[in-house]
Amino acid sequence: MAVVGIGPGGGKSLSIEAKQILLNSEVIIGYKTYIQLIEDLITEQQVISSSMKQELDRCQEALKLAKEGKQVAIVSSGDPGVYGMAGVVLELNEDPDLPVEIVPGTTAATGAASSLGAPLMHDFTVISLSDLLTPWQQIIKKLKAVASTDFVVVLYNPKSSQRREQIEIAREIFLEYRSPQTPVGLVSNNYRQGEKTVITTLEEFTNCDIDMSTTVVIGNDQSYVKFEKMITPRGYQL
Amino acid sequence: MAVVGIGPGGGKSLSIEAKQILLNSEVIIGYKTYIQLIEDLITEQQVISSSMKQELDRCQEALKLAKEGKQVAIVSSGDPGVYGMAGVVLELNEDPDLPVEIVPGTTAATGAASSLGAPLMHDFTVISLSDLLTPWQQIIKKLKAVASTDFVVVLYNPKSSQRREQIEIAREIFLEYRSPQTPVGLVSNNYRQGEKTVITTLEEFTNCDIDMSTTVVIGNDQSYVKFEKMITPRGYQL
Repeated sequence: MAVVGIGPGGGKSLSIEAKQILLNSEVIIGYKTYIQLIEDLITEQQVISSSMKQELDRCQEALKLAKEGKQVAIVSSGDPGVYGMAGVVLELNEDPDLPVEIVPGTTAATGAASSLGAPLMHDFTVISLSDLLTPWQQIIKKLKAVASTDFVVVLYNPKSSQRREQIEIAREIFLEYRSPQTPVGLVSNNYRQGEKTVITTLEEFTNCDIDMSTTVVIGNDQSYVKFEKMITPRGYQL
Repeated sequence: MAVVGIGPGGGKSLSIEAKQILLNSEVIIGYKTYIQLIEDLITEQQVISSSMKQELDRCQEALKLAKEGKQVAIVSSGDPGVYGMAGVVLELNEDPDLPVEIVPGTTAATGAASSLGAPLMHDFTVISLSDLLTPWQQIIKKLKAVASTDFVVVLYNPKSSQRREQIEIAREIFLEYRSPQTPVGLVSNNYRQGEKTVITTLEEFTNCDIDMSTTVVIGNDQSYVKFEKMITPRGYQL
């Protein structure tokens, strides 16, 4: 079986490898929004879609069908190894002889970065602000460590309808170490219909629209904006 | 013009978008190894290849040809926005009306992770050990910050023929904070001929073959090895 990353938005953001594997699958399993992103690749394959928060069920079903001999692909948006399904499938698999292939894709960090310009040209960090599976105090400790050492920081899952405070706390932590004018980029619905890109500042960014489809990129001390693009220099003498 | 990521190894690791843009280009510019990785896409396009360390010349040439009206693609391996050419092109561009498109791809971190299993399922950091463009003391400060806060860490440019000490120092820093048995994954020539994957430990990994084509993934306190795959759990109750 394969755990397949479909890039930020399916379609042209898919890798050639991912496309080939999906076309050759007998069963494709995934969250219904992800299935919609690859629906032009679906012809004869059986599709099993489900709602969010049924991740474990999807993985168990995929493993069961694979053990029965089916060619199964379970899809994740972005890269399946970054807060996706790759880890859960490997953790749940109890058969050492069942081959599980992880097929990488463009993850939200680099997809969003490409829409903003080139904010990730220097050392960077990826942090999820969701405290569903991680204690909030651990997340705060990580935010402080990277805010104080000039990493560019990409925040996944910045905010949801139930969870609105974390992004404000993250902003306050960064303001302790960085200028209020530090560039911050926001990308919502990357590579999907209604993609929206905003380049603003550390001081202002939480006044902008942010939801679960938004990726937040906080620049380092060197980041700047030029011709409406966000750039973190790498240090070449230009 | 476009700055195009070709994934870790070109070929099937390319995105559909990247392939289309390369096929439609009039001029393709890049380091010669990267050009070789996409040579099956080259028919009528003019190719300008150069050796390593001529990055600035390549970017200047690309911008000049684009201003003359040519459809130009400059290629980077992996993602062009991660230690690639995207930033330099945007920094050097002096024409606000010249459209520069950044085309993302699978970066070495997620490409290597997919070959190792699922080591990046929790918050992670990307750090280059090359001190050509960054003072070594800054790199050490970053290594300490993330080693002490349980990030999974991906090291790019870990070692070259002239630069052999940095990876040993990085290992010592991590050993101050993490068990010697912490899993470490090494992937060389990812998605290329001669790909090699090794899963070892923090104590042992610098005894293995490491060079500029190697991506090093250092696990966190939760990372473990199962059926020869490296996994960092995300925290689901399984």
